Amino acid sequence: MLAFITKNQALTAVRKPLPTLRRGWALVRVRLAGICNTDVEILRGYHNFRGTPGHEFIGEVVDVRGARSHEKKSWLGRRVAGEINIACAALGFHPPCEFCRRGLKTHCARRKVLGIVAHDGAFAEFLALPLENLHPIPNTVTDEEAVFIEPLAAACEILAQIRVSTFRRAAVLGDGKLAQLIAMVLVSTGVPVVMFGKHSEKLTLARRNGIKTSLVRGDKTDLHRSAPKQRFPLVVEATGSPSGLALGVAITEPRGTLVLKSTFHGAAPIESWPIVVNEITLLGSRCGPFAKAIALLRAKLVDPRRLITRTFPLSEASKAMKFAQKKGVLKVLLKP
Amino acid sequence: MLAFITKNQALTAVRKPLPTLRRGWALVRVRLAGICNTDVEILRGYHNFRGTPGHEFIGEVVDVRGARSHEKKSWLGRRVAGEINIACAALGFHPPCEFCRRGLKTHCARRKVLGIVAHDGAFAEFLALPLENLHPIPNTVTDEEAVFIEPLAAACEILAQIRVSTFRRAAVLGDGKLAQLIAMVLVSTGVPVVMFGKHSEKLTLARRNGIKTSLVRGDKTDLHRSAPKQRFPLVVEATGSPSGLALGVAITEPRGTLVLKSTFHGAAPIESWPIVVNEITLLGSRCGPFAKAIALLRAKLVDPRRLITRTFPLSEASKAMKFAQKKGVLKVLLKP
Repeated sequence: MLAFITKNQALTAVRKPLPTLRRGWALVRVRLAGICNTDVEILRGYHNFRGTPGHEFIGEVVDVRGARSHEKKSWLGRRVAGEINIACAALGFHPPCEFCRRGLKTHCARRKVLGIVAHDGAFAEFLALPLENLHPIPNTVTDEEAVFIEPLAAACEILAQIRVSTFRRAAVLGDGKLAQLIAMVLVSTGVPVVMFGKHSEKLTLARRNGIKTSLVRGDKTDLHRSAPKQRFPLVVEATGSPSGLALGVAITEPRGTLVLKSTFHGAAPIESWPIVVNEITLLGSRCGPFAKAIALLRAKLVDPRRLITRTFPLSEASKAMKFAQKKGVLKVLLKP
Repeated sequence: MLAFITKNQALTAVRKPLPTLRRGWALVRVRLAGICNTDVEILRGYHNFRGTPGHEFIGEVVDVRGARSHEKKSWLGRRVAGEINIACAALGFHPPCEFCRRGLKTHCARRKVLGIVAHDGAFAEFLALPLENLHPIPNTVTDEEAVFIEPLAAACEILAQIRVSTFRRAAVLGDGKLAQLIAMVLVSTGVPVVMFGKHSEKLTLARRNGIKTSLVRGDKTDLHRSAPKQRFPLVVEATGSPSGLALGVAITEPRGTLVLKSTFHGAAPIESWPIVVNEITLLGSRCGPFAKAIALLRAKLVDPRRLITRTFPLSEASKAMKFAQKKGVLKVLLKP
């Protein structure tokens, strides 16, 4: 099959055999894959990942190993999205680790992660995942919507962590792909949302989704100074930049909550005393509930398709990856 | 009256008139005051405070202004501890700020803070505080215990923020005065506590209070590397050092809680992705409930007197402040 691997900070096409399946795993033909900022970080060396990146996809089950025949039959040909963390049970570890035992599979101590940690991902014609990771997609949800389920679930993780609807208003820092999905998810709960971003065209897009916006001028190092004087009880940091944390702390009101979503690599200096003096709660937030993301799409409460800038054939993945890093570009898709 | 003020990063004795009282305020004769690390920070320029520092004290009410005569009578001669945040109502502001309206007086937007922000503190013969800030001290609690009520209340703030008893075990980073009080308060809930510190004699003291200890070797920059491999569901950072935050993140387990207590000045570089990937909750934690601290002392569940290294007469406050900064010294008290 055609697949891409990371090499010299870029994607390179290779021919690979189909992935072999463990018992209880499925072979999935990728119908559409999305490029995420994490993929860009991976090219730069994040997680020292060698292999095929890509963790956002919608696909179709073409083979299943070790399931009963009626179960197998029910999966074959199904359109599916897939959770990216592969935990103890699916990897054949007994007994499970402490986190699997507690039901926290996304924090499995032995986990592999699709296209991120030790498991080949979706920038290929096929991928393999455990059946327990797969979610069937309703017919009323298109491929172009369903390819957003993974990042949309990550946005929904905030809903699982805090009662968003109890906050008077919220701020989202950043105007990129993830920030846009987060703002849509927050707005879907009824909370008024202001997005702070540096790209007027991206902010225009947000306004079409009922989100208020505020243009932050200046370069990255200047973000802090140009931040608004107003403060918010709920702030979500999704700038993807090391300076986001300090800016987030600065605009979170006393006893407020600051959700951290950026997973860039690189340290930024931070004064921690304002967190202490203002008794701010910081919440790290990563992968989230697929069922909630699917429900939002099914109910047409969130429409992520406006975020698609361009779709490339898989064979042009290397070019697509470069395009995805251009200014003003939002979601770039790959179609095998 | 005799009072000390900050000058050239040291304390200087001055003669001052007695503080004038607003309506609803009390004049308090200081019986005993404690030196806190925040006082050391103030000498170094924290908050640009000019005036008399000192926010830990036990005193006696000697005058009251603007209270009914029977109320006044009930206060005169009472031994009291005092909350340090002076909020809208006591400062004569109407309407109150947003935070006072919500009952969060410790976060009052206009607050003055005893010995820290725009209000003279306890390194003097007398101080002034609103009656609403005062807590009578039971006769069974000695002055040497009661002078710890303010920092003990700060330790108790953790109990108000999270259900400590639901955690399997907890780590306290740091072995100084505040770290010791925090560990005592956590142990009082029944949770097993391990204190990580760099001073064997301070750790010996902790062990006498039923706290397990672990000696961390190396200088400050080396703390991180010498941190234990084990991780904890609850970690309290009370090192008073900029490197404490990164160390705290490193030893908090996935989905764990890291309480930040240090209010040193100075930025430290931090990678925020481990907070995101491990979905850690960071909680800033400052001033706490005096009633809870008094209850712990009254019930003899916490005995802070072992933390007293030495008591100086107030007239020797400058010398006492230098002594308080020596290695191995814990609480230093001033007796007017």
